Amino acid sequence: MPAVAGVRLAMARAGIKYRGRDDLLLAALDPGTTVAGVFTRSGTAAAPVLWSRKVASRGRARAFLINSGNANAFTGTQGMRDVRTTAVQAAKAVGCRPGEVLLASTGVIGEPLPVERIVRALPGIKRRLKPGPWQAAARAICTTDTYPKGCMGQALIGNTPVTIVGIAKGSGMIAPDMATMLSFIFTDACVPAAILQPLLAAGTARSFNSITVDSDTSTSDSVLFAATGKACNQRPCSANDPALKAFRLALNEVLLDLAIQVVCDGEGASKLITVTVRGASSSQAARKAAFAVANSPLVKTAIAGEDANWGRVVMAVGKSGARLDQHKLSVAMGGVVIADKGERVVQYDEALVTEHLKGADVSIELDLGVGKAKARVWTCDLTHDYIRINADYRT
Amino acid sequence: MPAVAGVRLAMARAGIKYRGRDDLLLAALDPGTTVAGVFTRSGTAAAPVLWSRKVASRGRARAFLINSGNANAFTGTQGMRDVRTTAVQAAKAVGCRPGEVLLASTGVIGEPLPVERIVRALPGIKRRLKPGPWQAAARAICTTDTYPKGCMGQALIGNTPVTIVGIAKGSGMIAPDMATMLSFIFTDACVPAAILQPLLAAGTARSFNSITVDSDTSTSDSVLFAATGKACNQRPCSANDPALKAFRLALNEVLLDLAIQVVCDGEGASKLITVTVRGASSSQAARKAAFAVANSPLVKTAIAGEDANWGRVVMAVGKSGARLDQHKLSVAMGGVVIADKGERVVQYDEALVTEHLKGADVSIELDLGVGKAKARVWTCDLTHDYIRINADYRT
Repeated sequence: MPAVAGVRLAMARAGIKYRGRDDLLLAALDPGTTVAGVFTRSGTAAAPVLWSRKVASRGRARAFLINSGNANAFTGTQGMRDVRTTAVQAAKAVGCRPGEVLLASTGVIGEPLPVERIVRALPGIKRRLKPGPWQAAARAICTTDTYPKGCMGQALIGNTPVTIVGIAKGSGMIAPDMATMLSFIFTDACVPAAILQPLLAAGTARSFNSITVDSDTSTSDSVLFAATGKACNQRPCSANDPALKAFRLALNEVLLDLAIQVVCDGEGASKLITVTVRGASSSQAARKAAFAVANSPLVKTAIAGEDANWGRVVMAVGKSGARLDQHKLSVAMGGVVIADKGERVVQYDEALVTEHLKGADVSIELDLGVGKAKARVWTCDLTHDYIRINADYRT
Repeated sequence: MPAVAGVRLAMARAGIKYRGRDDLLLAALDPGTTVAGVFTRSGTAAAPVLWSRKVASRGRARAFLINSGNANAFTGTQGMRDVRTTAVQAAKAVGCRPGEVLLASTGVIGEPLPVERIVRALPGIKRRLKPGPWQAAARAICTTDTYPKGCMGQALIGNTPVTIVGIAKGSGMIAPDMATMLSFIFTDACVPAAILQPLLAAGTARSFNSITVDSDTSTSDSVLFAATGKACNQRPCSANDPALKAFRLALNEVLLDLAIQVVCDGEGASKLITVTVRGASSSQAARKAAFAVANSPLVKTAIAGEDANWGRVVMAVGKSGARLDQHKLSVAMGGVVIADKGERVVQYDEALVTEHLKGADVSIELDLGVGKAKARVWTCDLTHDYIRINADYRT
């Protein structure tokens, strides 16, 4: 992935929890960078989320500082003090004000952040700042992830080519609104913060907020977006500016690609499951039905077992509370219509569905039969490895 | 468990799905029996649920006919025809009208009910009707259950002793409102249907509707309650009649005991988890918070791993949407206060909690710090066996 003008990165081994690997990432942003952020809606949001919400709302930043291994969540007033100390020290390293530093932390909840280890690592990390080491950066923010996640896109704004690069981490505790899901998007485009924020919010709704691994939502979820302006494109005048069309598409593709990488790396996941709901009475109802299927442990274990147990899909949509007409409901998997108008299709050939389920990319399609709204969400199967990973994560 | 006057039971091997075991239960009820029912709120409720809702609403019945191995759910108009055929034949066997037969089915969803096998078994089953074989009856309705579930209670109404006996089945797909959870309660008390129904509804809210195994709600959940009146107690005049106090307590105890038996037999369960939420702004908020914890895969796998990962409890209550004050939130496990007023207690000794988690009976207590409402729900841990059972249930 290419460097983004105006963005320099450096990693460090602060030893926050992990040994022998990078666990701290500093992204230094050139003066003039605009930012936007989307955050968890958890009632127990972590200290860095509370901090970064404020900074992002001002629309300007000069640095992202991210650590893995400790979430600094549910750490009370000490957690807020630690956030401030970290921002102050990062600001010194970069040469900006603490209120221009965006923070994100991921890892164990409830344990005090070993802030002195971060502070100790900052002077060294500053000297190593350079454009473009995306893969190493993506690795530094991982926790239970099995691979680093990155994606790039390019677009024209007017006649000016701009680049978008994103990295993400996340594997368990993934559900809307997000999860211990962190993602950082960088572009050299010139986009005012007042336009960057709605672009990010809209793109997140159909990507990071349309995925679920285990229905659990983390206290730390953050998607941060920085635009350095170095591409010197013509400044757009609104989020609906026609000149932004290609940029918006490229951004949405980057966000969705990263979100699907997160699902594919869902803890223990062996299959990606796409759930598409049509014929719903509203978009909200469609999402509700789709997420009920995507979060159902019984559906997810059936897919893990490559078992065409479509009755569980009917159960899940039934319990969702979304309005539906049982006598018009249809269910398909991999394009094979299994049930139509409330009962099994006479010529239904289970062998076709079983064959589809043997693949790594499973599709479940539903029509609720009561309207025209639709939604699509992504999840993964629920396997023995999910239990193995999560029954002994901390120990 | 004692016989209940006015109730006779018989089982049969109809061969609906299972071989070499009973899969059909007929309970014949003497004339004059009143009934009440509580059913799944699924939008894809099974044919027997649609049938029994109507019968129960009339308050009178002469028979319960229950089969395991096929849920007759999402079977369209054929399913409704099969329900009627079954009721007609059961009515013949018992000597009543089809509209006096309550039906329940549990098992695979979406496959046509082999109704002829049930019809064939009915004449034989009729000849074997007798008072009291509760354990065999409880066995006949099992699916993935690992043990039959039953409970009894006794109480006085006025000076007249009455008996309550209940059986239940259920192990996966358990969540409010219920799940493939069937329960049948019988009493010799004389209680008009108009009083029986609110008694059952109230008792169910704090028992079967306060448990969850996997958040999945079945299309077949039914709790049916029959009162034969053979005890000849004085007829109560309302659900609040003081003479019913002991009866209500005994009923609630039977319902809760059965509900907890169901949780303890949750698919793959190795531990019973009781989640108590206090300090909530309303009962609904308390339930929402308690269920968010009880349904969290990350909490349930941590308990399975005997890991005092209380941060996941904070995460779960945070995502619940229940109003809370993060700075007043407290978390305890097994009575050991871990976090208080939004941060970890300084003298917290994890060893005490770890010791508690080694037991089979785990308690999680939360105070949301914003009100006086409370709720208690029960669940089980999430283990490898849940995956094993559910990844190859149908095949």
